[in-house]
Amino acid sequence: MKYRKLANEELDRLDIEGFKTSEKFPVVLVLDNVRSLNNIGSIFRTADAFRIEKIYLCGITAKPPHRDIQKTALGATESVEWAYEENVFELLQKLKTEYKILAVEQTENAVLLSDFSPIKNTKYALVFGNEVKGIQQPAIDLCDNVLEIPQMGTKHSFNISVSVGILLWDLFTKTRS
Amino acid sequence: MKYRKLANEELDRLDIEGFKTSEKFPVVLVLDNVRSLNNIGSIFRTADAFRIEKIYLCGITAKPPHRDIQKTALGATESVEWAYEENVFELLQKLKTEYKILAVEQTENAVLLSDFSPIKNTKYALVFGNEVKGIQQPAIDLCDNVLEIPQMGTKHSFNISVSVGILLWDLFTKTRS
Repeated sequence: MKYRKLANEELDRLDIEGFKTSEKFPVVLVLDNVRSLNNIGSIFRTADAFRIEKIYLCGITAKPPHRDIQKTALGATESVEWAYEENVFELLQKLKTEYKILAVEQTENAVLLSDFSPIKNTKYALVFGNEVKGIQQPAIDLCDNVLEIPQMGTKHSFNISVSVGILLWDLFTKTRS
Repeated sequence: MKYRKLANEELDRLDIEGFKTSEKFPVVLVLDNVRSLNNIGSIFRTADAFRIEKIYLCGITAKPPHRDIQKTALGATESVEWAYEENVFELLQKLKTEYKILAVEQTENAVLLSDFSPIKNTKYALVFGNEVKGIQQPAIDLCDNVLEIPQMGTKHSFNISVSVGILLWDLFTKTRS
């Protein structure tokens, strides 16, 4: 059996303490009015895997602890740092001094993710919006750039937790190479 | 306003008819005993965006039409071709003649996705397993190779619909360049 499945104990993951003190992937996520607790939990779990700096929960985005977030986060709300910031506009103004702010949205003049090259030694804040309405236009207007994931099918958008996974994987591979 | 948000009608997506007759990304997905209807629906939506050939639903994986699949698929079960194949082992034997079969799992000798280079002009079948138990070992044994998404945090796996998004985006970018 060449490809023996590994048990969880064999995966050598960090414990919470190890996570807290480890070097982070220099990215924060900003969730603007995300409605689904399922999505929020799944995003925490993805953020844990990429060991990002922090998640900001804004507007109506629910915060842990919450049973339905926990169902998909599976404990990642304990490892990943997060903060609730009601006002996304004030938050983006604050983040601007330290991060390049990228909205993930479908807009005029958006850069296709396939054409995007991250700048070395730059910290990024990635903004994601409501499942139906997307990011509020005035929040987009505060961003440095907009990234769009190319889509070849019939539907208008990806599930938000899938978008977060694609974005983090893309940034991760492009900044490592 | 440089980054004006686009309305759905401005996105110029395919209609169902256009999707059916368009050239496909030469990938099929095999879902082995996926439990969550939410995940199945979200995977359909991602499969629509990458315009893949087909989704195979195996074992306990539920099939459309189902209200809870529809909630996250948002109609993508109408565009993406799919089939229910109860026996994943028989399916993999059949697919082997046309596709290179890659399990997405954590195993001994797995290739990290960051190290994986797809072979030109090769069609791939990507196998994903149950949310808790992963892919059955005898199904893994029928695969040509195993891919593992690197994870730097405390949790043992990604949400399956996030894994599908990462895998399809990775294959898409690597086969385009």
